Amino acid sequence: MQSKSRVLPLLLALLLCANPFARAQAAAPEPLHTASKEELQIVKVLLAQEAAWNRGDIETFAQGYKDSPDTIFLTRQLSRGHDGLVEQYHHDYPTKAAMGTLTFSQLEVHPLGENYAACIGKYELERSKKEGGHAEGLFSLIFEKTDKGWKIIIDHTT
Amino acid sequence: MQSKSRVLPLLLALLLCANPFARAQAAAPEPLHTASKEELQIVKVLLAQEAAWNRGDIETFAQGYKDSPDTIFLTRQLSRGHDGLVEQYHHDYPTKAAMGTLTFSQLEVHPLGENYAACIGKYELERSKKEGGHAEGLFSLIFEKTDKGWKIIIDHTT
Repeated sequence: MQSKSRVLPLLLALLLCANPFARAQAAAPEPLHTASKEELQIVKVLLAQEAAWNRGDIETFAQGYKDSPDTIFLTRQLSRGHDGLVEQYHHDYPTKAAMGTLTFSQLEVHPLGENYAACIGKYELERSKKEGGHAEGLFSLIFEKTDKGWKIIIDHTT
Repeated sequence: MQSKSRVLPLLLALLLCANPFARAQAAAPEPLHTASKEELQIVKVLLAQEAAWNRGDIETFAQGYKDSPDTIFLTRQLSRGHDGLVEQYHHDYPTKAAMGTLTFSQLEVHPLGENYAACIGKYELERSKKEGGHAEGLFSLIFEKTDKGWKIIIDHTT
């Protein structure tokens, strides 16, 4: 399920829907938006995170974040630091069953100059009731173009 | 209460606390951080929003946002457009009592190149129980440097 078969539909969805300057409330179909190289690179980071999560690989999932003590995570609280994130995820999701199946959708990339971009989207987490049940919410991410590729520096997930 | 007397302490708090590269979990006192011109300009936008809100002036509050149909608001749902925001606020907060007293704190400005910046922080809203009671949460904002000054283009508040 985490194979490339999911990548193409998501990229197409991005091409068709992720015009960052389209109005959500517009009744007319969205105009075709040609994703830039940067937008595709950022979407690929998220798809790689999704795939890593779904095979129970927290380390690879965490590679989507900048490996820095300054990387910021906002949920109900603010926390900082890549290493702390990995520890927290191992604590909160001790097994693959606890991690469930993660799906990102409604991704929109908004370039912020050459070296930064925002990405907003929706996550859904399917888990058994025993493991916490279904969860979903919206997120906004800020990416930085680093020498290791586009990395998340601020993650606000609700 | 919304006079300049609040501005100085908040600016000082920024100078003392808002080092965007300081670790929150560090036990040692934060090093003194000299706020840049851009950081102060952005904080002033938020202070002007706070003051406008607290005198019941939704129009001036909304001037902190870019006047564009593409301005994005993420709460539990995603909505777009400056005009829609103003309408929604008038609907949700029909009176000054309903608006309550808004306070921003823990502001951190993170420059994202020359023309964009992120600002994270906390809001608290004091209202009578009848009007909905106390509310608080975290926010992350993305600002764009426009020809009308720094304006919020994405607001994620939870």
